[in-house]
Amino acid sequence: MALAQSKERDQRDPMPADLVIAKLAQKFGNRLVTSQAVREQHGNTTTWIEGQPPDAVVFPQTTEDVQEVVRLCAAQRVPVIAFGTGTSLEGQVNAPRGGICLDFRDMNRVLAVHAEDLDCVIEPGVTRKQLNEYLRDRGVFFPIDPGADASLGGMAATRASGTNAVRYGTMKDNVLALKAVLANGEVIKTARRAKKSSAGYDLTRLLVGSEGTLGIITELTLKLAGIPEAISSGICPFPSVEAACNATILTIQSGIPVARIELLDAPQVRACNLYSKLTLPEVPMLFLEFHGTEASVAEQAERFGEIAQELGGGPLDWTTRAEDRSKLWQARHDAYWAARALRPGIQVLATDVCVPISRLAECVTATQRDIEQSRLVAPILGHVGDGNFHLSLLVDLDDADEVGRVKALLERLVERALAMDGTCTGEHGVGQGKMKYLAAEHGEPALAAMRAIKKALDPLDILNPGKIVALGQT
Amino acid sequence: MALAQSKERDQRDPMPADLVIAKLAQKFGNRLVTSQAVREQHGNTTTWIEGQPPDAVVFPQTTEDVQEVVRLCAAQRVPVIAFGTGTSLEGQVNAPRGGICLDFRDMNRVLAVHAEDLDCVIEPGVTRKQLNEYLRDRGVFFPIDPGADASLGGMAATRASGTNAVRYGTMKDNVLALKAVLANGEVIKTARRAKKSSAGYDLTRLLVGSEGTLGIITELTLKLAGIPEAISSGICPFPSVEAACNATILTIQSGIPVARIELLDAPQVRACNLYSKLTLPEVPMLFLEFHGTEASVAEQAERFGEIAQELGGGPLDWTTRAEDRSKLWQARHDAYWAARALRPGIQVLATDVCVPISRLAECVTATQRDIEQSRLVAPILGHVGDGNFHLSLLVDLDDADEVGRVKALLERLVERALAMDGTCTGEHGVGQGKMKYLAAEHGEPALAAMRAIKKALDPLDILNPGKIVALGQT
Repeated sequence: MALAQSKERDQRDPMPADLVIAKLAQKFGNRLVTSQAVREQHGNTTTWIEGQPPDAVVFPQTTEDVQEVVRLCAAQRVPVIAFGTGTSLEGQVNAPRGGICLDFRDMNRVLAVHAEDLDCVIEPGVTRKQLNEYLRDRGVFFPIDPGADASLGGMAATRASGTNAVRYGTMKDNVLALKAVLANGEVIKTARRAKKSSAGYDLTRLLVGSEGTLGIITELTLKLAGIPEAISSGICPFPSVEAACNATILTIQSGIPVARIELLDAPQVRACNLYSKLTLPEVPMLFLEFHGTEASVAEQAERFGEIAQELGGGPLDWTTRAEDRSKLWQARHDAYWAARALRPGIQVLATDVCVPISRLAECVTATQRDIEQSRLVAPILGHVGDGNFHLSLLVDLDDADEVGRVKALLERLVERALAMDGTCTGEHGVGQGKMKYLAAEHGEPALAAMRAIKKALDPLDILNPGKIVALGQT
Repeated sequence: MALAQSKERDQRDPMPADLVIAKLAQKFGNRLVTSQAVREQHGNTTTWIEGQPPDAVVFPQTTEDVQEVVRLCAAQRVPVIAFGTGTSLEGQVNAPRGGICLDFRDMNRVLAVHAEDLDCVIEPGVTRKQLNEYLRDRGVFFPIDPGADASLGGMAATRASGTNAVRYGTMKDNVLALKAVLANGEVIKTARRAKKSSAGYDLTRLLVGSEGTLGIITELTLKLAGIPEAISSGICPFPSVEAACNATILTIQSGIPVARIELLDAPQVRACNLYSKLTLPEVPMLFLEFHGTEASVAEQAERFGEIAQELGGGPLDWTTRAEDRSKLWQARHDAYWAARALRPGIQVLATDVCVPISRLAECVTATQRDIEQSRLVAPILGHVGDGNFHLSLLVDLDDADEVGRVKALLERLVERALAMDGTCTGEHGVGQGKMKYLAAEHGEPALAAMRAIKKALDPLDILNPGKIVALGQT
């Protein structure tokens, strides 16, 4: 079957991508770019996964532009890869079979803000910082913060989350509806603007996290949150990772609606001290943020302080003043750069897993031991309210032995998370990097169901092929 | 194609259901029932949609039982319909083509409670009241309350929600993972117990709301919430539906984390007064509940009271004492029975739509006018924090003229909701009753995508056929 199709293609057109590019050039003029530099920039994976540039990059301005590209590509069975800001971490934007990259840079308009409904409608190239700047004067904000100033189309496509997810959820909880171009060139709207619906299959949640393999997002309706009246922030040392994790569990069980609860392990605190010239105690720390009224953020901080103390941690250093809050959070904000600074010039590989919170301390502690035994440096940062944590693995790519030890560590990390009923990725997504773990995580029947869905919606396998589930060459 | 298949079936076996039943009898003994009474009870739709009984009812005890039934049915292309408590409202449990009903009455065990992770694992026949009784001593509860004491498998299948959804979300937000038997007889687990994951397509959310048409749920992992330290409740009169809706909007915009905010329109209040011998002012009322600490529930109630007053409503009558709370909420709890009592012996038809909250007042007011002009009685109850409202339509099924006016009203109600960017059903689901609205709501390309998914996962169309998307006879 695959063979027959590829023969058919060869007979029809020996160089389908060139044909598509020629047609695109007519339509898009200088919004089609084929220069080596631009192509490579769009196949840059920000990790050690090899860059695989597309054949050309198109900058669409409308949904109809996207339809046209998809239709031309479908006719020639040429891949189409959606691109936001290129900050994904598992090779999501790579073009292993070449094809046309759709860079949504120019589709960056906020189309509507409905403050009464706490929602907005935007184009996929809008970044989260851009959106929040736009919203600032309206008393609302978009709470999902994955760190990078990613595009919201990309964040939806990879089911991103980040520091605020413990309170506000992930992209799956904050996308109300999507407009998307399917592989057949048709445009769908996955839902209405109503806050909830039971009217049929949840196409919204099916597209969120599908990494451009089932449809190309061209418009998003997002939930917004009211800007809290007051915010309090604090940092709190703990004698052990376990104590910090137990404090997190108790906090959430007590119904304290913590907005951020971030773990920095001792090596990460050490890195921050070095980088930001701080004098934090080099022990596991929780960084926290509470949103609410003046009275409630004070109450939340105080109640957390009591919990921390019960578990041998503390004291919680907290404040509601904006400038003091920034100072407290500085170490957390600088964590990535601090990790890099531990070994200047060395590559930092970010990876993440997520486990039930009751297993988090055990998983982090075992991973720390593994890092040490592997003679590696890898500070740990966790969105611990969700049981999610990250390793910033410092790796000298020229040292084959070290690379080997890092790869082995990553395998064990995923194995450990899966053994604890966790997932191989809490928020970075699958891309190319984590495909090999999906069978172990989901089992063959579930993976077969995913493949069946992919095949049903993209029978020619043109939408970001070779990601999440591989159908093989068609 | 359809013809060829049906011919093929006829040649292979003229009475496939009987063949399946004979085999099931061997395996299930008296857990297979074919009596007229039991069959009719399982095809009873609780509305005016005609009952369509299955050919037999099986009471499975394990996932393997379900696999066996599905495999036998698949071999003969006989439909399989999952059944919880039969409280669905749009004909979801009907068997228009006959087939085997799987009644999950006996699969009602709570398999695990992980209080630290705020989750539990249960069988699909567990009802929400049963679960909350089981959980009571553990400091946690399952917050979704659709009114009826429905089974949790059914609530997941129909994407149920209810009064608490404004704070705790709907079933889509509270199902962490599902075990399900697919049409091919394979068992899948849709996700791990980790609170979030980016590892592939969201099969959990695809099954939630699919009404048994994509897979048969045999186990659920549900999120739980901590039992709030304190609860305050209140009722508050308003001069108009608009004022009540505006108070709701302001409450949510201000970030007051209201747990319940329910609108009763004046006819509904009148019905409650009659039924429960109350003396409430017969104007639009909001019934509210706040969850939190002692201090925060008092603060929430007070802040809401101020908002109500600003909008010409109030005073808010509120309390934190359990017995007083029950008294305040009595009218809301009795609303359904009160509506029935308005015209004893007459059928009450429940229907729901959901619109963006900014359009809610307009939608409710226009609907009230429509009810009056249609010379009908239909009190309105709304989960107004979500923009969702219900009509309890009193209809004398023997009065053809009245039935005609009710049907016309329902059409206009859905049209009105869709015109306001709303949905034809916020929480009751599609079943048979609302299939005709899906094309208008989603558009043909999205509906085609839903059909493609159904076809991919259930190519023989044996799982609850004729619901949500119809593939036609195969």
